[in-house]
Amino acid sequence: MSKPRVAVIGLGAMGLPMAGRLAAEFPVTAFDLDADRRAQAADAGATPATTAAEAAVDADVVLLAVRDQQQVEAALFGPDGVATTLRPGADVVLTSTVGPQAARATAARLPDHRVVDAPVSGGPARAARGDLLIVVGAADDALAATRPVLERLASTLTIIGPNPGDGQALKAINQLLAGVHIAAAAEAVALARGIGLDPNLVVEALSQGAASSFMLADRGPRMIEAYGEGAEVRSRLDIFVKDMGIVGDLARDAHVPTPLAAAAHQLYLLGERAGLGAADDSAVVTVLSPKD
Amino acid sequence: MSKPRVAVIGLGAMGLPMAGRLAAEFPVTAFDLDADRRAQAADAGATPATTAAEAAVDADVVLLAVRDQQQVEAALFGPDGVATTLRPGADVVLTSTVGPQAARATAARLPDHRVVDAPVSGGPARAARGDLLIVVGAADDALAATRPVLERLASTLTIIGPNPGDGQALKAINQLLAGVHIAAAAEAVALARGIGLDPNLVVEALSQGAASSFMLADRGPRMIEAYGEGAEVRSRLDIFVKDMGIVGDLARDAHVPTPLAAAAHQLYLLGERAGLGAADDSAVVTVLSPKD
Repeated sequence: MSKPRVAVIGLGAMGLPMAGRLAAEFPVTAFDLDADRRAQAADAGATPATTAAEAAVDADVVLLAVRDQQQVEAALFGPDGVATTLRPGADVVLTSTVGPQAARATAARLPDHRVVDAPVSGGPARAARGDLLIVVGAADDALAATRPVLERLASTLTIIGPNPGDGQALKAINQLLAGVHIAAAAEAVALARGIGLDPNLVVEALSQGAASSFMLADRGPRMIEAYGEGAEVRSRLDIFVKDMGIVGDLARDAHVPTPLAAAAHQLYLLGERAGLGAADDSAVVTVLSPKD
Repeated sequence: MSKPRVAVIGLGAMGLPMAGRLAAEFPVTAFDLDADRRAQAADAGATPATTAAEAAVDADVVLLAVRDQQQVEAALFGPDGVATTLRPGADVVLTSTVGPQAARATAARLPDHRVVDAPVSGGPARAARGDLLIVVGAADDALAATRPVLERLASTLTIIGPNPGDGQALKAINQLLAGVHIAAAAEAVALARGIGLDPNLVVEALSQGAASSFMLADRGPRMIEAYGEGAEVRSRLDIFVKDMGIVGDLARDAHVPTPLAAAAHQLYLLGERAGLGAADDSAVVTVLSPKD
């Protein structure tokens, strides 16, 4: 079996390092609306294309790494979109977090192609070294066809179900927990500051026991740093504005109350309104406890 | 230095195993309003007393393990309370979670005694084997005097500050995180059920990565169990009704918004109203997603 030719559509924070990682192993074409990003992908070993259609023309696997469902639709079904040139037998891998319904709708519009629902987690640095968590909803044949590409990117590949949307559903629950845990860490740091405890000591003391979370240990120190120069942007705050919206839609459609996720969504919206949308998500702490 | 004589006041879920653990090392007197609990403490090697005053009369260290501040006040300052017999030089250790203000008020009413603010976490099983997390607010001399007792009970002893109230403040932040994380796990399990994903698979898939928390891994499986016979009661739901109330008071007094902690508090209140106050706290999931 020869190596699949891969088209990467979307060269943002995640798409660019994924394209570079894939280009070291497979023939890769790469498209982004931004010419600078295309040039960076070329530097990383990919062949740049000036439209999504051009990137996809010879591809066996088209990997979408755009921001949201609006961009997915433009990339696939727009005037110069992937669908205009996609070869028979080519597979589409959807790595964006768009929600189960959007993934199912996308698959329904590509009835002659296999769509692998494969939202990713882990951030740019882990994307560059193939250390992502990818949760997959795909039938066995679609998974087999795209597995070399997915395994090049993921250290953990979780197959949650056979259908497009299944990966998105698990990713939404991941984001519910991640988004709530970041907000909880922010409340803890803000409260520590408010009552005069050393937040560093608090985060350190609580990062092992019953109060521990990945996010407390990871974002806690960055929240404290946010009061200085501001934390380096590793994951944008406005990603949670989008993703907690997906969680809210999913929960509402299933008639499941999720009051904490809803409160966390409001906090991220407040953060975005305060001008922090492009800041690191740890900056949400300043909504609760402003800089002095 | 001879071994301190210890009085344990309150022989509930935490007090009884603590009394047993201490009685294997120190002379221990023990009091509870419930005669059955006193008998169980006697079986574990303590000398039972029929009033708090009687338990405290010869004690070097009086350890309070009652449920809330109302019980603290009755145990210390009631008609047959500890204060009526407490020896000069005896120290008081407060292991209950009552909030910083209550701990400071208690210390202020015992001006001739050292009060060690030492709220505990970890549950009955860990209490019995000396594996608790104890966070301490106490001056150096008070800590030195009571350290043998604290170290008999704790695997982790965190000294957060010199004053009564400091331990309570850290414990409150611990409970903020723990209470929010349990509620978040409940939302995740309820949503998984609501959209038809296998909750076991979801909890397993998410218990390692960015969505992980101690509570997801610990309470998640017990929440799924809650749909069957109900989880064994390891930590009562109504403890979080009390503790999230303490968190809310503390945050409000400090003018720090804690919307997630507030939402979690409401969930525990809903659980209590639904008759789950004495159930395991993991049963809160059934508020969001009722049993079929």
